[in-house]
Amino acid sequence: MQALTVTPGTKDSLRLRDIPEPEAREGSVLVETLAVGLCGTDLEIVDAQYGQAPPGQDFLVLGHENLGRVREAPAESGLAEGDLVVGIVRRPDPVPCKACAAGEWDMCRNNQYTEHGIKGLHGFARQRWRGDPEALVRLDDDLADVGVLLEPTTIVAKAWEQIGRIGQRAFFDPKTAVVTGAGPIGLLAALLGVQRGLEVHVFDLATDGPKPGLVRDLGAEYHAEPLPESGITADVLVECTGVTPVVLDVLTCRAPDSITCLTGVSAAGEETEVDVGALNRRAVLRNEVVFGTVNANRRHYDAAARALAEADEAWLRRLISRRVPLAGYADAFADRPDDVKVVLEF
Amino acid sequence: MQALTVTPGTKDSLRLRDIPEPEAREGSVLVETLAVGLCGTDLEIVDAQYGQAPPGQDFLVLGHENLGRVREAPAESGLAEGDLVVGIVRRPDPVPCKACAAGEWDMCRNNQYTEHGIKGLHGFARQRWRGDPEALVRLDDDLADVGVLLEPTTIVAKAWEQIGRIGQRAFFDPKTAVVTGAGPIGLLAALLGVQRGLEVHVFDLATDGPKPGLVRDLGAEYHAEPLPESGITADVLVECTGVTPVVLDVLTCRAPDSITCLTGVSAAGEETEVDVGALNRRAVLRNEVVFGTVNANRRHYDAAARALAEADEAWLRRLISRRVPLAGYADAFADRPDDVKVVLEF
Repeated sequence: MQALTVTPGTKDSLRLRDIPEPEAREGSVLVETLAVGLCGTDLEIVDAQYGQAPPGQDFLVLGHENLGRVREAPAESGLAEGDLVVGIVRRPDPVPCKACAAGEWDMCRNNQYTEHGIKGLHGFARQRWRGDPEALVRLDDDLADVGVLLEPTTIVAKAWEQIGRIGQRAFFDPKTAVVTGAGPIGLLAALLGVQRGLEVHVFDLATDGPKPGLVRDLGAEYHAEPLPESGITADVLVECTGVTPVVLDVLTCRAPDSITCLTGVSAAGEETEVDVGALNRRAVLRNEVVFGTVNANRRHYDAAARALAEADEAWLRRLISRRVPLAGYADAFADRPDDVKVVLEF
Repeated sequence: MQALTVTPGTKDSLRLRDIPEPEAREGSVLVETLAVGLCGTDLEIVDAQYGQAPPGQDFLVLGHENLGRVREAPAESGLAEGDLVVGIVRRPDPVPCKACAAGEWDMCRNNQYTEHGIKGLHGFARQRWRGDPEALVRLDDDLADVGVLLEPTTIVAKAWEQIGRIGQRAFFDPKTAVVTGAGPIGLLAALLGVQRGLEVHVFDLATDGPKPGLVRDLGAEYHAEPLPESGITADVLVECTGVTPVVLDVLTCRAPDSITCLTGVSAAGEETEVDVGALNRRAVLRNEVVFGTVNANRRHYDAAARALAEADEAWLRRLISRRVPLAGYADAFADRPDDVKVVLEF
């Protein structure tokens, strides 16, 4: 069967490869792939900045954002042929750390987790794969066209869950949220903010293309200016760019008692002049919280599925700006200015 | 009666002044002052960096860390003559913000709060003062010698409460805590960390004087080296210096999923070269939290009273390195190398 693969550590090694059918030890449920979404992590893996093949293998099947249909499932699995499913990306080590043992592999302490299509496990960009029932999330069939957005939605479902939980440290009654970056993560973060009844402001550089309309059609406000120029000071801020000056802007446009969530994986290695004393002083005197979040565990997949089910399906479809057949993978990876989310179709 | 006062905005205006007895409108309970502790905020007020007189007055009675005895109390107050009490420093505005209305004046959103001895209300460095019962905390008489430490203990009681609550965002099982700074706040933060069963490491520059012994006698470990050189990566970090390089050290010596609490009010205005991308990246990939905390509300006073009651009283007495009679206030404010907490006695 066909699979989209890379040789980890080798730049531009992306290619279609014929690989054997998935082995039974991968899991008891056989899934036929419908779609795989592409994100920045995939680009980093293709660029050989990241990525690890399964033990004893010299290639890695790409793809972690996924959607498929069950082809075979044992009776006791709770799944049946034809069910729409998504595979959970991160899996705990067989000898789990305490967080993994508690089902919170997104909080893994010892870095021994594996991730489909990223770290030590083949991804979902292959025609068929297998998984155990506990590593699969069933979706309602209404989400057949947009369910490939589940995995990126889990990232923001975790972000908003953590914001809500951290908010419980004291009186918490947020009104205004700022999201920086109107890529898929930023747009989904805005969606979940609107679903929580917040006044959401999204900041991005784009002045045309689909992003301003996508934000407005959510009922949120789009800003193509830098955050400090807007005069907005938010109760909740979700940073989705990882761009250093934007991160610093976010840290200075916060209301007292605000919660700032960092989701953007930035590049290290460049120093900036920062008034650390001023940032520390305001954090203390204004009870400010900043936290980072990565990945998602099962309850975030469940929360993400609920968020997608509540959302306007037409709006979700517009997030998928291009659907490219597997054979056109090279085109799928080419950067187009109006891209939001590009999906490979199987 | 005598009061220790400043003229806010005028440097070195500290002096004893004869002022009228407290007015009935200050509160229904008359309190006779036993002791007032001095801290960095008092020094900043004397240095005219800070401090606001009550409306219509040109001087401010200093003193927010306090201990007194009830002299007169209405029957319905729940207090009786002779009770040991501490006055709560911050009071909500008569037209409270939502946080203040919820009893969380420490989280005040609109900056309209007042603070005894700091902002718009006379302090406790006067022979007698009045307060309403809801602004007073009764202490067990066993704490007569060390109860003046209650207010600084409320700061760390809030810090540890917030650490615990934020920890509930996910799996939380901290083992190791780092405290930077072995002043009164750092030492009390270490005390509460030890009370929570954590392995506590305290970092300070002092190589002699009382601090190393105070830390060791808590059952914690004292380090006179910079945190990064120790190789320790903590689950919980409580920063109590506000010194920029120490704050940056703390941000780079954290375990995955760690919680960092900033309590030190730093000076602004100086820029440092910082790899913001690296800090942001690790915050995201390691689910790190940083939060600031200031002040305390009633539940933190109650928690602090429990913490002091559980502590070794002899150890608490040693925190008070000098007790100076009110008339010797100038000496009390002089910086001595072996000072931990200096207390004015009435």
